[in-house]
Amino acid sequence: MSEQTQARFSFKLLKTDGGARRGEINTPHGVVRTPAFMPVGTQATVKAMYPEQVRDLGADVILGNTYHLMLRPTAERVAKLGGLHKFMNWPHTILTDSGGFQVMSLAQLRKMSEEGVTFRSHHDGSVHEMSPERSIEIQGLLGADIQMQLDQCIALPAERSEIEEAMQLSLRWAERSRTQFEKMGGPEKGQGLYGIVQGGDNPELRVQSAKALGDMPFEGYSVGGLAVGEPQEVMLKMLEVTTPVMPVDKPRYLMGVGTPEDILESVARGIDQFDCVMPTRAGRHGLAYTRFGKVNLKNARHSEDPRPLDEASSCPATREYSRAYLHHLVRVNEGLAAMLLTWNNLAYYQYLMQGIRDAIDTGTFEEFRQKTKEDWARGDIEPYVWS
Amino acid sequence: MSEQTQARFSFKLLKTDGGARRGEINTPHGVVRTPAFMPVGTQATVKAMYPEQVRDLGADVILGNTYHLMLRPTAERVAKLGGLHKFMNWPHTILTDSGGFQVMSLAQLRKMSEEGVTFRSHHDGSVHEMSPERSIEIQGLLGADIQMQLDQCIALPAERSEIEEAMQLSLRWAERSRTQFEKMGGPEKGQGLYGIVQGGDNPELRVQSAKALGDMPFEGYSVGGLAVGEPQEVMLKMLEVTTPVMPVDKPRYLMGVGTPEDILESVARGIDQFDCVMPTRAGRHGLAYTRFGKVNLKNARHSEDPRPLDEASSCPATREYSRAYLHHLVRVNEGLAAMLLTWNNLAYYQYLMQGIRDAIDTGTFEEFRQKTKEDWARGDIEPYVWS
Repeated sequence: MSEQTQARFSFKLLKTDGGARRGEINTPHGVVRTPAFMPVGTQATVKAMYPEQVRDLGADVILGNTYHLMLRPTAERVAKLGGLHKFMNWPHTILTDSGGFQVMSLAQLRKMSEEGVTFRSHHDGSVHEMSPERSIEIQGLLGADIQMQLDQCIALPAERSEIEEAMQLSLRWAERSRTQFEKMGGPEKGQGLYGIVQGGDNPELRVQSAKALGDMPFEGYSVGGLAVGEPQEVMLKMLEVTTPVMPVDKPRYLMGVGTPEDILESVARGIDQFDCVMPTRAGRHGLAYTRFGKVNLKNARHSEDPRPLDEASSCPATREYSRAYLHHLVRVNEGLAAMLLTWNNLAYYQYLMQGIRDAIDTGTFEEFRQKTKEDWARGDIEPYVWS
Repeated sequence: MSEQTQARFSFKLLKTDGGARRGEINTPHGVVRTPAFMPVGTQATVKAMYPEQVRDLGADVILGNTYHLMLRPTAERVAKLGGLHKFMNWPHTILTDSGGFQVMSLAQLRKMSEEGVTFRSHHDGSVHEMSPERSIEIQGLLGADIQMQLDQCIALPAERSEIEEAMQLSLRWAERSRTQFEKMGGPEKGQGLYGIVQGGDNPELRVQSAKALGDMPFEGYSVGGLAVGEPQEVMLKMLEVTTPVMPVDKPRYLMGVGTPEDILESVARGIDQFDCVMPTRAGRHGLAYTRFGKVNLKNARHSEDPRPLDEASSCPATREYSRAYLHHLVRVNEGLAAMLLTWNNLAYYQYLMQGIRDAIDTGTFEEFRQKTKEDWARGDIEPYVWS
């Protein structure tokens, strides 16, 4: 499609049910049904999954990490090879983060200024620069459908002055990010840039940040700087004060969240998009998410259990392999353990999102929320008894 | 199927073409088209593959390792859970080795006698016993369709006296294995037990071993103790003297072999079955087997190569991912690298076997052999040039 005929990035709010919102994001690579969970594909792969499997589970969008990709294989190389979608065989929507969070958490920091950050790669120590402009340039080279402004995310707890300073810097970087995004023709390509609400655990700063960003012409808005160590109730409280002052007609993305319960509660507070390494990382560590809570397959109680994780699931990993077999694979450290459990976990997350969307569609979100929490509270099935 | 109606294990020799043989083995879990390559599933999983993928590539049979399975999860546990087929979701034919080779190569050996071997597990140091009877008992508990006698396999080069002693001991163990196999009702269950020809690199001892075993009522015969360090021509020479004195109407299995070329040359010398870790292990180390030889994806020459490994392949791993992407995955050590390259490698091995079988069917094996070797000699494609 030429630039002339490429539709603009858009968001349609289809229905609300209490605070929960059902919507659709349109990007150059398809429709994203919201609320949406975005599996994390850090290094141009959702770990231990073929891209088609991820799609078949119902994921409309995945996340790529700018920090990792700028270092290896580099954004320039991905662009030369036709962009990230083609590179990783994912012809659907891709969202990239700004790289800022990983620069702060993974890289060896050298210098932080108004201009940006100079850092050393955690792989080989090579020196790189990251600024609002460079972050957008990289995300544009990758060809991300949904891009993030560079922001400054700090750990909690923190002093108010420190939180405010980072929030104000993030607002200035939001403006610079927007300018660069438009310079690169992002809007004409149908891509979207999200501004990121900061403000730590301070309600006043959160509102101030959300309002200031809302006055800028972003295609969507993220809530950043949460799930960074604070209790869940602090996170939910921040959402309760923030989402009411965010634009109604734009998608809202809660970055890096979370557990199934975090997602359910955040949807209730008006969030539309989520990403988290939890289902994929847990899958590589013997932990399965199911309708009835988490199952630690390392536990010897599963060693002779012939039952699958959930025979009612439509996912082969969940339905066709015994707990005894999964326990064995985890115990002997076989790659198939990660493959099956990641598959199971992403299947559960997408099953949860589909349930959430269906419930909002039918105006039954509150019943769904209660029922789902009861199932989790019921806990996993009783130990198997051999007759 | 009850024991009364279970068909006996059988082998049908369908066609010969020079020394090459085309046949069919019938087991309780299906038909094995020979010549056959058996992917190795050491710990009840073909590493980095879903069982259905292995089947879809055309594998009729996989191999399980008795030594590994007896230690974890134990044969008794697998039996309790319904046998190895059910445990690992592989409802097709399974062959198990005797465990002897790994006892010698992996375990800490404690005592070797006429009776058997006492050894310590390489995992936890626990003490175990292995005898011809115990090996068959384990293989029976696993429910293997094709079982191996316990034998003594020695490294080459070795003294003639040492080779002969091991060969004679293996013959006595063959008798004891057979007795145990019949005691356990293997024949009535439709299972097969193979005797194993030993004799090192000594033609006379090889012939003596093959003839002695041929006089015993085995369902098939293995050639063991090759591909243990000797040059390829020694291995092929041993086959040339051994296969002519092996029973014509029984399948012949060359254990632990080998490279595509080893397989092609061994088929030409009358071998029907093969197993080797090479395609799976290479897949975890960045090495791809293709129609035009091996491709080392670690090599930087692939870093910007947009071409797939072989666009004419029917395997998605081979056809749908660029060399640049595979190079990236290998370089950043992602699990998907092992998943895609193992898939590619097993696809190539099965493609080779299908080609071999078709060629024998049509009486064109010699042409196929020459053409295949020419393709390998041609080597991989030229470096990609960006215009």
